[in-house]
Amino acid sequence: MSQEFSVVGKRIPRLDGVAKATGAARYAGDIKLPGMLIGKVLRSPYPHANIKKIDKSKAEKLPGVEAVVTMTEDAVIRKTFDLGLVEVPKAALERPRQYIFNEKARYVGEALAAVAAINESIAEEALELIEVEYEKLPAVFDPEEALKPDAPLVHKRNLAMHFPYAYPEGDVEKAFQEADCVVEGTFRTFKQVQCFLETEAAIASFDANGMLTVWSPCQLAHLGRRELAHIFDMPVGKVRMINPYVGGSFGGKLRLNVEHICVLLAQKAGKPVKLEYSKEEDFTVMETRTPFKYNLKMGFKQDGTLTAIQIKAIAWGGAYSSNAAVAADIFMNMGLGHYRCPNIAAETDIAYTNTTISGAFRGFGNPAAMWGIEQLVDTAAEKLGIDPLEIRLRNIKKAGEPTMGFPIQSTALEECIRVGAERIGWKEKRAKGEGIIRRGVGMATMSHTSGAQPRFLEHSNAFIKFNEDGSVNLVVHPGAPGTGILGTLAQIAAEELGLHAEDVHVVSGDTDITLFDIGSHASRSTYVIGNAVIGAAREAKGQVLERAAKTLGVSADELEVKDRRVYVKSAPEKEISVAEVAHDAIYDHTLQNVNILGKCSFAPTAYSPPTQAAFAEIEVNTETGEVKILRLVIANDSGTSINPTNVEGQLEGGIMQGVGFALTEDYVINKDTGVPTKDFQNYKIPTTLDVPQIELILVEKPDPIGPFGAKGVGEPGLITIAPAIANAIYDAVGVRITDLPITPEKILSALEAK
Amino acid sequence: MSQEFSVVGKRIPRLDGVAKATGAARYAGDIKLPGMLIGKVLRSPYPHANIKKIDKSKAEKLPGVEAVVTMTEDAVIRKTFDLGLVEVPKAALERPRQYIFNEKARYVGEALAAVAAINESIAEEALELIEVEYEKLPAVFDPEEALKPDAPLVHKRNLAMHFPYAYPEGDVEKAFQEADCVVEGTFRTFKQVQCFLETEAAIASFDANGMLTVWSPCQLAHLGRRELAHIFDMPVGKVRMINPYVGGSFGGKLRLNVEHICVLLAQKAGKPVKLEYSKEEDFTVMETRTPFKYNLKMGFKQDGTLTAIQIKAIAWGGAYSSNAAVAADIFMNMGLGHYRCPNIAAETDIAYTNTTISGAFRGFGNPAAMWGIEQLVDTAAEKLGIDPLEIRLRNIKKAGEPTMGFPIQSTALEECIRVGAERIGWKEKRAKGEGIIRRGVGMATMSHTSGAQPRFLEHSNAFIKFNEDGSVNLVVHPGAPGTGILGTLAQIAAEELGLHAEDVHVVSGDTDITLFDIGSHASRSTYVIGNAVIGAAREAKGQVLERAAKTLGVSADELEVKDRRVYVKSAPEKEISVAEVAHDAIYDHTLQNVNILGKCSFAPTAYSPPTQAAFAEIEVNTETGEVKILRLVIANDSGTSINPTNVEGQLEGGIMQGVGFALTEDYVINKDTGVPTKDFQNYKIPTTLDVPQIELILVEKPDPIGPFGAKGVGEPGLITIAPAIANAIYDAVGVRITDLPITPEKILSALEAK
Repeated sequence: MSQEFSVVGKRIPRLDGVAKATGAARYAGDIKLPGMLIGKVLRSPYPHANIKKIDKSKAEKLPGVEAVVTMTEDAVIRKTFDLGLVEVPKAALERPRQYIFNEKARYVGEALAAVAAINESIAEEALELIEVEYEKLPAVFDPEEALKPDAPLVHKRNLAMHFPYAYPEGDVEKAFQEADCVVEGTFRTFKQVQCFLETEAAIASFDANGMLTVWSPCQLAHLGRRELAHIFDMPVGKVRMINPYVGGSFGGKLRLNVEHICVLLAQKAGKPVKLEYSKEEDFTVMETRTPFKYNLKMGFKQDGTLTAIQIKAIAWGGAYSSNAAVAADIFMNMGLGHYRCPNIAAETDIAYTNTTISGAFRGFGNPAAMWGIEQLVDTAAEKLGIDPLEIRLRNIKKAGEPTMGFPIQSTALEECIRVGAERIGWKEKRAKGEGIIRRGVGMATMSHTSGAQPRFLEHSNAFIKFNEDGSVNLVVHPGAPGTGILGTLAQIAAEELGLHAEDVHVVSGDTDITLFDIGSHASRSTYVIGNAVIGAAREAKGQVLERAAKTLGVSADELEVKDRRVYVKSAPEKEISVAEVAHDAIYDHTLQNVNILGKCSFAPTAYSPPTQAAFAEIEVNTETGEVKILRLVIANDSGTSINPTNVEGQLEGGIMQGVGFALTEDYVINKDTGVPTKDFQNYKIPTTLDVPQIELILVEKPDPIGPFGAKGVGEPGLITIAPAIANAIYDAVGVRITDLPITPEKILSALEAK
Repeated sequence: MSQEFSVVGKRIPRLDGVAKATGAARYAGDIKLPGMLIGKVLRSPYPHANIKKIDKSKAEKLPGVEAVVTMTEDAVIRKTFDLGLVEVPKAALERPRQYIFNEKARYVGEALAAVAAINESIAEEALELIEVEYEKLPAVFDPEEALKPDAPLVHKRNLAMHFPYAYPEGDVEKAFQEADCVVEGTFRTFKQVQCFLETEAAIASFDANGMLTVWSPCQLAHLGRRELAHIFDMPVGKVRMINPYVGGSFGGKLRLNVEHICVLLAQKAGKPVKLEYSKEEDFTVMETRTPFKYNLKMGFKQDGTLTAIQIKAIAWGGAYSSNAAVAADIFMNMGLGHYRCPNIAAETDIAYTNTTISGAFRGFGNPAAMWGIEQLVDTAAEKLGIDPLEIRLRNIKKAGEPTMGFPIQSTALEECIRVGAERIGWKEKRAKGEGIIRRGVGMATMSHTSGAQPRFLEHSNAFIKFNEDGSVNLVVHPGAPGTGILGTLAQIAAEELGLHAEDVHVVSGDTDITLFDIGSHASRSTYVIGNAVIGAAREAKGQVLERAAKTLGVSADELEVKDRRVYVKSAPEKEISVAEVAHDAIYDHTLQNVNILGKCSFAPTAYSPPTQAAFAEIEVNTETGEVKILRLVIANDSGTSINPTNVEGQLEGGIMQGVGFALTEDYVINKDTGVPTKDFQNYKIPTTLDVPQIELILVEKPDPIGPFGAKGVGEPGLITIAPAIANAIYDAVGVRITDLPITPEKILSALEAK
């Protein structure tokens, strides 16, 4: 693949590598502004309570306190969190909104008041001086319970949204009747926590002209600043959001989390304010993954052909509506779009509960969907006497078949399945378990998306300006979310411009200067932003060629650029350096001066799914219920790897989170107090010791639309892990765990039941 | 004028006003970076000395010192200060260069070594620990002396450059023979000091990837970063120069002053370094105005028609070649281009001396040229029996006549002369002086430039991006030099875009994001950058109209934008708001998404001189020699005033500096020690108490090329003051002072001689 490219495909070190390794990277929490105050938030200790009274007078009198804002006095400052990402049904738009402060406490951690003081200890002391009179209310924590008629009401009703599947097909009832084999099951996922290394933090500062600057890890800075402008009734152009280095976001920062309170404090205090969460606050109030409980039913012909699939799901929304709606949409669209199937029906109810809000986490709803689908496919295969690998090969889509009405541009899933199976030794290792410790092998597949189209708004922009030495500044806005995307975009720009990667200086993360970008999510950045970068590079290159053509006395279409030089294709010895062209464009004494700039707005009109097959070899200890992962083979098809090291990094990070999702993590809400898990002693993320060396196979089949053939790779890693492990466990010990995480207790109890 | 405009012509408060008035504005010296060191420079106490040895060992051992760099060890770090501004003769390019540290001390204040330490007092202590062994050399301070054969040599030769006039015409010798009246004189100006409110300061910081950021008041940031890249052998794109608020530049920051030493220290220390001058350092080492001593000869016909003009000048270059060459070029071009004249000859020798470098100051060489020319014109008028006003009207150019080969686009100088004369009461007040205190009235005119074309490179760029609420960000690079230019450019953009001024958010002063700009000088910003802004606005507006046309079902050329709304010209009730167009362009669910951006590169191909007539009414005390200014009437033609308050501010600031140039300031170099004036006790700038209320008349004749008719206004104010006052003194007491400043001593001695 990569031999036709000069820069694409190279393992170039990450742009943020040295800064992060040396500690030079500055995160929001590291930034200090002159005169900056420290903010703290007072939070409800109760999952559900009316707030009868808040007395802030003592707090305000504490020396060093410069602003106190409360639910009762600063309650409803316009609407928030309507980030416009989702094209949801109209009914959904009528759902209750979340405000900076709401009218009651709906979950443990709900913000009731906030203070800004000259230092942290005074701010904390001030919180203790705020007197709140609570009227405790009955609470409901479970989404199924919440939807029952007699449940305590979180909002006017607990059904946040009834969400029908947007692309139903055929007649599922008829198809199930006609099927040779129908399998069915109920599957459940949990509120997985992103576990950012960096706790949430933001700084807000107004300048002398009232211009607001917010330093924030928000993953969609352009929407974030628009939302802040809306909340505080300012022109969008007067709100500047800067993304400093970000210590992990994974979807949890696809909304305003802390910024709005921070701005309110800064406005009231008339000084810059920093608001930084503790790890406990992160656990308590940051959006978790949206969990689903759903009934899944699939019908097959005798030969394994999938004929019908049906989902009835409840999504656990938590205390307010946020990205659960997006998660539900993706849950249905990705899950039901994966296999070719003529009869599809699905619906999801989103339920309010008195718990932390549910939202986005790597893969959105896709991991939940594939958790059930990939297990039921195995069940059907067993019933039909077909190899699980073969039944999948029979049903996976080929390029050109539609997903969500779009023909898929490329898929290498078949190759992924074959090379992955080959590597793990699929045929030899299946169902070889005996004795106390039994081995098993399982597999799972998925297809995901490269960008948020067609359901959600998609739009990226980039511009490239030439410096006089032939280097360029690429101005584009993914910020620095920690994915290595900036280096990837630099490689894309360099390839298109005929430059070296180090010739591209990336300027990013500042809404004042970057053009609109919908944000870092949906495995979109390489594919969508990358295409905007290519477009900008192409436009800039066109101007380079036009000027070079004049100098070389040929027409521009006779020219090509490579290795920093423009040359005549038919006579490569006729050449001029890009540096000379760029320099003479700026310092042109013939008054044809131009600072070459190329710009592109890109909205994808195609659908290019990354696909993946995961194979897990595991051991189950039938006496303790413990699962040990022996091997993980992941064959991934994300098209061309712009930077294979980055692609591997994204996959490995996702896979580790997938292992946690499968086996070790759980977010437990105390049924008496409503208090959730809030530390790493109880929330166990896997470490490198828990996972063997991950075996990655990059199946680099170029996509026709992706930049140089690349597709998205941010989310796939995670999605296939839990079902592959569950299938391996079944292969090893013959029990099916349908309720994540797969704990030793659940395995033991399943073994016992068996 | 202004009634046809919506935004242009309005007196809108300056964008930097509140920040400066409240102290919120942060200058380079106010910026603190984590771990930042403080730099200090060791300077030569002698005007001319070989440096035999520098021992830095004691300084390096001082706890808290993190870097010491010296002339002997870090001497010649590539070439500096070749900023490429000037199209000078080839010989000039061979002149000796200035380096970060040079091989000997050539003036008092020459940098010999520098330290970076954890605080200022340690840095100062470290300077004292550096041991320098000097070999004192004979020095020369006067440019005429320096050009004599036996003068001590500053460089290999003391003639820095012989500079012939670029546009000679006719045969001056023949013309003088044929003239009815020939007048001649020798005129001298001095090393005027800019007296910035902010002392020079810069901060340099390398990031983990080696990217260099420099905060600096440099007036030509894009050239400054290019020069730093050149010195430190870095790609231009890896050097970022940020202009924070600037406390006055006036041409003194048209080069690297402190930045290069700062970067060298930061590189050596591996930490950010701030280097901030004391006021004494500012006086001692910052470039002053380039002084000229010249013989001026003019020939006239009986009717007052100018037939010949000749200049032979020596420019005082100081210790190194810098902007004296530009000053010399402008001295000749502006002076000799002012009046219509068929026979012109001139040449200037630039001399090295063991003194502070001479360079740029508001007006460059034009004030020096008009100092003599406007006095000799009065002398000729007297000889010919013509009113000084009439002789000027006879010789001033009309629109279409050439200057430097360009037809001048507009001039309202005749109107300026007439309205100014009317206001001051020219006819009534001339030569009315009697007694000890005598009154006089004098006048002077000038024409200047709007941009550096055609002699110097001219090039500006701007881009405008639309925000989703219909506001725009204008990204453009004049920085914030204190001239109010950013607000002026916002008004220009708003006018062209049909928006309100407050809809334009200006983003500036950062080379990472702004396109190339040649800098803030040459009264160019409104005219050249303004035209780039109009071009960018026009392109962006075109995209707005295209999208609005689709919505309104008409063609784009049927539309106009005003007051934030796009409407059909023939049916104004058919309209759509700009905000709606901009919003729908970004959030376009039909996948025609675009973030509207307009960009323009502008290089002027026309010449639009601002012109001005100044009238001074003064009193001379014949017993003390003191001059008191009674009235100053300045009629200025800078075309349309984009913001009259800004125009007046620019003129008034220049006029005050013109009064200092005329009467009170002087930079005296001690003939024994070479030490110059270095404090405000000895360098006397006029205050508001020294000048009466300045009477400004803005003659707003729109220029066909300038943005909305505007021409440059940054420099004119200063240029006419000294000759107008000198002519008024002659009118009052009949003596001519040709040697600036006009001190009481000189007047008394002239009166005595008379």
